[in-house]
Amino acid sequence: MAKTTFVDVFLRIRNSKIFNASVVSVIIASALYAGVTSYNIPDDYQFILNVFDYGITIFFVIEIIIRLISEKSLLHFFKSGWNIFDFVIVMVSLVPVAGAETVFVARLLRIVRVLRVITVVPEFRRIIESIVKTIPRVGFIILLMFMFFYIWGAIGTLFFDHIDPSRWGNIGSSMLVLLQMATYDDWAAVMRDVVEVYPYAWIYFVSFLIINAFVLMNMVIGIIVDVMSEEAKKDFITEDSSEEDPLH
Amino acid sequence: MAKTTFVDVFLRIRNSKIFNASVVSVIIASALYAGVTSYNIPDDYQFILNVFDYGITIFFVIEIIIRLISEKSLLHFFKSGWNIFDFVIVMVSLVPVAGAETVFVARLLRIVRVLRVITVVPEFRRIIESIVKTIPRVGFIILLMFMFFYIWGAIGTLFFDHIDPSRWGNIGSSMLVLLQMATYDDWAAVMRDVVEVYPYAWIYFVSFLIINAFVLMNMVIGIIVDVMSEEAKKDFITEDSSEEDPLH
Amino acid sequence: MAKTTFVDVFLRIRNSKIFNASVVSVIIASALYAGVTSYNIPDDYQFILNVFDYGITIFFVIEIIIRLISEKSLLHFFKSGWNIFDFVIVMVSLVPVAGAETVFVARLLRIVRVLRVITVVPEFRRIIESIVKTIPRVGFIILLMFMFFYIWGAIGTLFFDHIDPSRWGNIGSSMLVLLQMATYDDWAAVMRDVVEVYPYAWIYFVSFLIINAFVLMNMVIGIIVDVMSEEAKKDFITEDSSEEDPLH
Amino acid sequence: MAKTTFVDVFLRIRNSKIFNASVVSVIIASALYAGVTSYNIPDDYQFILNVFDYGITIFFVIEIIIRLISEKSLLHFFKSGWNIFDFVIVMVSLVPVAGAETVFVARLLRIVRVLRVITVVPEFRRIIESIVKTIPRVGFIILLMFMFFYIWGAIGTLFFDHIDPSRWGNIGSSMLVLLQMATYDDWAAVMRDVVEVYPYAWIYFVSFLIINAFVLMNMVIGIIVDVMSEEAKKDFITEDSSEEDPLH
Repeated sequence: MAKTTFVDVFLRIRNSKIFNASVVSVIIASALYAGVTSYNIPDDYQFILNVFDYGITIFFVIEIIIRLISEKSLLHFFKSGWNIFDFVIVMVSLVPVAGAETVFVARLLRIVRVLRVITVVPEFRRIIESIVKTIPRVGFIILLMFMFFYIWGAIGTLFFDHIDPSRWGNIGSSMLVLLQMATYDDWAAVMRDVVEVYPYAWIYFVSFLIINAFVLMNMVIGIIVDVMSEEAKKDFITEDSSEEDPLH
Repeated sequence: MAKTTFVDVFLRIRNSKIFNASVVSVIIASALYAGVTSYNIPDDYQFILNVFDYGITIFFVIEIIIRLISEKSLLHFFKSGWNIFDFVIVMVSLVPVAGAETVFVARLLRIVRVLRVITVVPEFRRIIESIVKTIPRVGFIILLMFMFFYIWGAIGTLFFDHIDPSRWGNIGSSMLVLLQMATYDDWAAVMRDVVEVYPYAWIYFVSFLIINAFVLMNMVIGIIVDVMSEEAKKDFITEDSSEEDPLH
Repeated sequence: MAKTTFVDVFLRIRNSKIFNASVVSVIIASALYAGVTSYNIPDDYQFILNVFDYGITIFFVIEIIIRLISEKSLLHFFKSGWNIFDFVIVMVSLVPVAGAETVFVARLLRIVRVLRVITVVPEFRRIIESIVKTIPRVGFIILLMFMFFYIWGAIGTLFFDHIDPSRWGNIGSSMLVLLQMATYDDWAAVMRDVVEVYPYAWIYFVSFLIINAFVLMNMVIGIIVDVMSEEAKKDFITEDSSEEDPLH
Repeated sequence: MAKTTFVDVFLRIRNSKIFNASVVSVIIASALYAGVTSYNIPDDYQFILNVFDYGITIFFVIEIIIRLISEKSLLHFFKSGWNIFDFVIVMVSLVPVAGAETVFVARLLRIVRVLRVITVVPEFRRIIESIVKTIPRVGFIILLMFMFFYIWGAIGTLFFDHIDPSRWGNIGSSMLVLLQMATYDDWAAVMRDVVEVYPYAWIYFVSFLIINAFVLMNMVIGIIVDVMSEEAKKDFITEDSSEEDPLH
């Protein structure tokens, strides 16, 4: 009875298994392409790679058109952040560019294109969403850590500037050194250089390490408690339903 | 009817949104100032920065006076540790200082002044308070770790003093080396230098690493369990109320 | 009454304490053998070691034959992955090999043989199984991390190739550098070399470190929550039974 | 009425606050002594330090005698592991020693003596006991990790011996290198040296890092779950009692 409209056909294509499988395949192919071009390829094969690259670009354009048409309206399509992400990546890779710097930009775009694997595999999207959800929870702690780095960085610049300007020359550089210390990477060597001049400078470094450890621990425990109490609530609600969530 | 007293006016100012927003803005400005002065600024701009600095100092003095007057009594103001913290920082930055060393002290005070961001943003205050609360819980573990570092440090000094005096020369220096080992920073290089002389010295280092890992793990798990059982109690109490705590 | 069949005798041997104890002893002996041969052994003792090695090989063959016969059927034996693992290791160590490279392969096989300790001690098997069980839970996160490493690796190769080809020469090499960064091992030195050329390259490194930390934290918390909710379910079911699980 | 016996007097002394406070004070003094002697002390002060040292030794002997007498029986005293620990440390420090090597041993004993702080402060004893309690739980995992290190160490020695004998020369040395890798300390440098010779050796290193991370994570999560379910049981039992455990 129902007349098969133009949109219906595209919707059926978009929802078909073959369509989805081929999209995933082409994205994996584009990932392999990005990997292969990082090696030095003999010129003989360069042509094949270029054809391959054009193929991927054309496929992506067709795919995005199918997905656009199969939506009820353009507005509906652009309501999803993931769709906008996809659309921008495909559009940008179409912009015609030329010249020496262009080759560089073109290669970068081909790498960024691989990010589409996230939008296509629902599990990846879910992981990203669950990670993004933890950001507001820890937002103020991260801001506080930034302030802490900033103040310690300013103090470090003030005191140690003349000892090693490449490390402590300005607040930006000092904050990178403090990030290095916060990850316990080679911090003892950094401290030793300073302690040779100011024997009491260990107070600066040890206090930084201890405060940093406490703040980080506080953040991690805060997230664990948060996630768990949320999980407990979910369990409480879905106690009778047999719903199962493979990843949490 | 109610006569608007002098104090009421100041209280209204203190509680106004404009006042709070401008305090936060000026603190951020003072943070930027502390950051900018860490770079080499041409002398032409030095004058502008000085004016800027005086402006911040005067603002802070006015602010603290408003907050002092708006309180019921001076005693009430100084009951809060955060108020004392604020007051001391502002007062100290007023002390007139002169001479070469003074420039240094003045710059340090301008950096310390940025710490006021913690007292102004309530979320920061809450995080600091929740971190400080975990300290008594772990107090004895930290004391035990200190004893452990002290004894291992003394043994290290006794055995390895003649191998590398810059590292193992005295108990203070040895304890810093052990802190380096406790964070797994370049410990293998420290061990190698010693093992070349005493082949069995690996027992000293490996035992330290393992004991350290167990004590730290015990501490972290202790805190997690503590925070969680506290959280569970809180959930139990507020089960019916709709109270929500975004970060705890 | 019951006629003791041929199989029954072997079954009794296999289940005897003496048999199991001697299997564990011989495996420990084979482990010691693998350890001792890693030192330079004088030729005089080489003969003794060879005899010792033959003894172990023959014992393992006899053991596997006893276990094979004592089963109801060959098919039943090969249903267990652990049995296949055992069988393959013993069989491979029987393959006669000759020549210079052979000595190398033979020594490798003698080391691999020690892996049998896992199949013999039930506690080890249980730990391995519980670790393997966590893999599907984190499968997609690991895949996502691989994608993340792959894309960042491709970008790193594109930008930093000419700075240090030994590190950023191709995507494989770049991914190893990123693994180094993900474990916070000497990452500041890697960054410093690049920042000297591109001052803004710290964005690449710091973003990598932060994203990596968030994804890893998400993974660990996901597993903790998973294991705990599973544990809670188990507790709920076995509440009245006195069953006790020594390890988790 | 009750006749105050000889033992009663000693019991009263042992339980008096003054006695306990003075024991703690003398142990802290002995800790300071051990710390001070790690610095180069001018000969003029050496005499004072020696007197100080004799005083501590005599005090400890008197203390242990008081505690011995105040017990019901000698057997009762030696039932507690902590008492044996105390007794052995005090006795050993009494053994008269002479000669050059003796000074060294004497200094070591004076450091070991500081360990008595653990037996005297009940909180320290409780922390140690709670850490020791986690060992059987993780016993088999640690054994499995040892096997894992042993097998990987043997393989490392077999393959990389000729590249860097100081690192991969024998199984003991290789296992120390693997411990270095397990703590992510400078592992990339170790790998780089090997990969230059065998380009595929990264499989050996990366597989080690990943397996190690999974086993360690499994261990930590196992302990967390264990401690928490224990805590939950305790909460369930003491729900109505007002018992409070500050650190557990």
